[in-house]
Amino acid sequence: MADAKTVSAVLDALKFDERGLVAAIAQQHDTGEVLMLAWMDRQAVTKTLETGQVHYWSRSRQALWRKGETSGHTQALIEFRIDCDADAVLVRVDQTAVACHTGRRSCFFTTVREGKLEVIG
Amino acid sequence: MADAKTVSAVLDALKFDERGLVAAIAQQHDTGEVLMLAWMDRQAVTKTLETGQVHYWSRSRQALWRKGETSGHTQALIEFRIDCDADAVLVRVDQTAVACHTGRRSCFFTTVREGKLEVIG
Repeated sequence: MADAKTVSAVLDALKFDERGLVAAIAQQHDTGEVLMLAWMDRQAVTKTLETGQVHYWSRSRQALWRKGETSGHTQALIEFRIDCDADAVLVRVDQTAVACHTGRRSCFFTTVREGKLEVIG
Repeated sequence: MADAKTVSAVLDALKFDERGLVAAIAQQHDTGEVLMLAWMDRQAVTKTLETGQVHYWSRSRQALWRKGETSGHTQALIEFRIDCDADAVLVRVDQTAVACHTGRRSCFFTTVREGKLEVIG
């Protein structure tokens, strides 16, 4: 869990967009699987670092959201990375059960294969 | 390389935002490393699928951009995936040399470690 000084350093480093958000990629830390793309505001970044449980900003509900708060499918934070232009983060996580609301492990379950869209996984 | 029908199916499936963009995560196909996050408009998606070379939309230059067109650090498309709400794509690629303009393999080279931001890789 990060202390206040660390949280402050991360918030200072990040470049939040005009909506106050950064893009956040969640990746399973040990397999490398990309699980989902979501968004974080300053509060979601703060809560993620403070608690070690990944939080996002829901654009549809316009609300802070602790991943798994209703489903139980939480994301324990393993590592928090920032990209070169500081407008995207990569959270390396340990995903409980599945990341996608459809019940699939990853949200990226549609692939282009042999000329058509195919659901995998 | 995808034919016109496939490209059309992908463009129909995607939900471009108010700027006409979808977020695109590039991942090295064999190691799982997350290389970068960028954006694609309809033309970038089309060119990526048609040519097998990843293209993006540069928000800063407001222009179509074939990754590696000046650096030579191209991304050969291995697989094209779409997420559950169709506003993000995951391109699994074979990255030539490095993905980041700083010369690092991945753009996500800053990590939060022991209370401070640290450059890795």
